[in-house]
Amino acid sequence: MRLAVYSRFLENAKQRGVVTISSGSIAEGTGVTPAQVRKDLAYFGEFGTRGVGYNVRELNGHVLRILGLNHKWPTVLVGAGKLGSALALYEGFLARGFHIVGIFDVDTDPVGKRFGSIEVLPVSQLEEVISKYNVQIGIITVPVAAAQDVGERLAGAGIKAILNFSPKVINLPADIIVRHVDFSLHLEVLTFNLARKVESKK
Amino acid sequence: MRLAVYSRFLENAKQRGVVTISSGSIAEGTGVTPAQVRKDLAYFGEFGTRGVGYNVRELNGHVLRILGLNHKWPTVLVGAGKLGSALALYEGFLARGFHIVGIFDVDTDPVGKRFGSIEVLPVSQLEEVISKYNVQIGIITVPVAAAQDVGERLAGAGIKAILNFSPKVINLPADIIVRHVDFSLHLEVLTFNLARKVESKK
Repeated sequence: MRLAVYSRFLENAKQRGVVTISSGSIAEGTGVTPAQVRKDLAYFGEFGTRGVGYNVRELNGHVLRILGLNHKWPTVLVGAGKLGSALALYEGFLARGFHIVGIFDVDTDPVGKRFGSIEVLPVSQLEEVISKYNVQIGIITVPVAAAQDVGERLAGAGIKAILNFSPKVINLPADIIVRHVDFSLHLEVLTFNLARKVESKK
Repeated sequence: MRLAVYSRFLENAKQRGVVTISSGSIAEGTGVTPAQVRKDLAYFGEFGTRGVGYNVRELNGHVLRILGLNHKWPTVLVGAGKLGSALALYEGFLARGFHIVGIFDVDTDPVGKRFGSIEVLPVSQLEEVISKYNVQIGIITVPVAAAQDVGERLAGAGIKAILNFSPKVINLPADIIVRHVDFSLHLEVLTFNLARKVESKK
């Protein structure tokens, strides 16, 4: 998503002390065409000044608000296996406002393990934690066989959006936003580009 | 990338025994507009028949070739921590032709551990394995402090494309394709949609 990419670039510019920035610089720094940058930003109203550019802090504030990142998002994670453990400790989440307030497992083995300040809880306590912290986002990293059940349980407990790392498609009511992460998609972007390189050398 | 999404849909249709398919069905099954599907597929030449649609197997073959997936890709993975271990065992890679032929770690602790049939090797053997299997793709899952070094080492050993899971941007010569995976980007797509839902209810 381009907005998320712009926001990372603006965050970085802010940290380097940049005060104003042109759409051309944003384009160059993000690999998006200047026309597309102007189109994307114009869509959200006029907050650039012709010839001066955008105020970095103000623009980033707008973009963060549109991304829904102007406040913190308590998040639960179900599945404390290898991938779940890696995500539980992933620093990038906290930096963007995602606070993991509960880690659960369907198995009893990992219960009681700690990741940072969070202890793995049995899945029976899922509803309690979701209600306590008013959680809207859930991350699923359970094995294929448990994915659909966990998805339904999260939806039933009031979760509105799910990031599903399990290789199984889960079917939930249409008002629940489900995004499926497929790691091989990332690799296919690489092979697509590698294949084009070979092609252009022929 | 839309092509990768089409390919997953076509793969699934093929498994269900579907022989021909219309661009409308592809659009419906993938959430892309019919006009965009026709535009994308027309770009790669005329292989649909008006009124009949596309031969599923043939179309998928074309899409896979364009994605560079008409052959297997030996792949190495550096960083045998939690995320690396999860990726080493990720079934989705094999299904799309990505064969992990070597797992390495900069630390000596994980060396000798096995993930499936592959043993974790010291990073000193990286060049040997890359050369032996003619590997072009590398996956980086090392801690931030080691990411740049590992990237340079991969590039030096002949790797052409890198998937970087480390939260650090790595700088490599322009002819090396580097793709950075940021898990919070996926969550931001969810919050963007959640924020729009709240907005539309106002």
